[in-house]
Amino acid sequence: MNFKDLVLKTRSYRRFDELCKVDLKTLESFINLARLSASGANRQPLKYVIFNSGEDCERVFPYLSWAGYLSDWHGPEKGERPSAYIMILGDKSVTEIFGVDFGIAAQSIMLGATEAGFGGCMIQSIKREELRNEFEIPEKYEVLLVLAIGKPIENVVIDEIKDNDVKYWRDSNKTHHVPKRSLKEIIIKL
Amino acid sequence: MNFKDLVLKTRSYRRFDELCKVDLKTLESFINLARLSASGANRQPLKYVIFNSGEDCERVFPYLSWAGYLSDWHGPEKGERPSAYIMILGDKSVTEIFGVDFGIAAQSIMLGATEAGFGGCMIQSIKREELRNEFEIPEKYEVLLVLAIGKPIENVVIDEIKDNDVKYWRDSNKTHHVPKRSLKEIIIKL
Repeated sequence: MNFKDLVLKTRSYRRFDELCKVDLKTLESFINLARLSASGANRQPLKYVIFNSGEDCERVFPYLSWAGYLSDWHGPEKGERPSAYIMILGDKSVTEIFGVDFGIAAQSIMLGATEAGFGGCMIQSIKREELRNEFEIPEKYEVLLVLAIGKPIENVVIDEIKDNDVKYWRDSNKTHHVPKRSLKEIIIKL
Repeated sequence: MNFKDLVLKTRSYRRFDELCKVDLKTLESFINLARLSASGANRQPLKYVIFNSGEDCERVFPYLSWAGYLSDWHGPEKGERPSAYIMILGDKSVTEIFGVDFGIAAQSIMLGATEAGFGGCMIQSIKREELRNEFEIPEKYEVLLVLAIGKPIENVVIDEIKDNDVKYWRDSNKTHHVPKRSLKEIIIKL
């Protein structure tokens, strides 16, 4: 797959075949891609936690918010939930600023997941303190992102943006539509 | 190229064949990869500025800091400088928070550059106010990153980290060594 196709296929998926598991070695191989990616001043302040048992995934799920723009949908039903999560933590004993690092890492992981036949969603909307309590996450770690990973069962398409409306939406076939700004809009001249 | 090889090849390069130009269409194709990547709440708050003329690149160069750990090297000499830059701006009229977005975008761009036979470096250490004055960048844009892009002429290798020392260094053959933390160190259990 050329890289543009890989990027195109790496959509944010929120419904999965939950029976399709993602094994530890596979998840580690995704994190290895993040490890081998750039890091500001090479500090490498990120740590990763893997959840891929049914029990652990069930513990993570309640602390995540799904698809803010779909107000009548509160996240995937049982059977359509992710079968794994990778939590990205910022280790404050290394630096207090995680700037560009966690975006780089998350993108490497999600692209790697696509290549391996999986997909998922980067989730920033997290009940952080409750999640910290649930897993007794030490204070030295900042919860930056949770990546939901599984076997996607939804169709996601990119649309041209209209009237500056960035809200994604679902049509009657449950196809998920994501309006994207044009190249013309985002490349500016000074 | 499989994705792991693409990631491995996407090192931070700081010396280039400056005679090898990067044309506008190619740079736009890299930005298109960022455009097609994930964005927090799909807000897409990033804007991009392309510099690829010799004159513009010469204007950008003085405002960038290169390789902080190489204290006796003040950046690439003439002839070894990047032949293009992509500046990533955060449009504060869209949101004030650029969180995960600019890392995602930068990683997509740099991976795309590698696939196209180029390479470069994400530069965060920028004399932001001077650069803003030089190009009259409106206040509504936050200068997030400058990506230097060109035809790399340096050899960069990944080493195992020793004694927690993250500083990259150059050997007598000018090979650039980057110590990376082990997978064992960065995957933690709670």
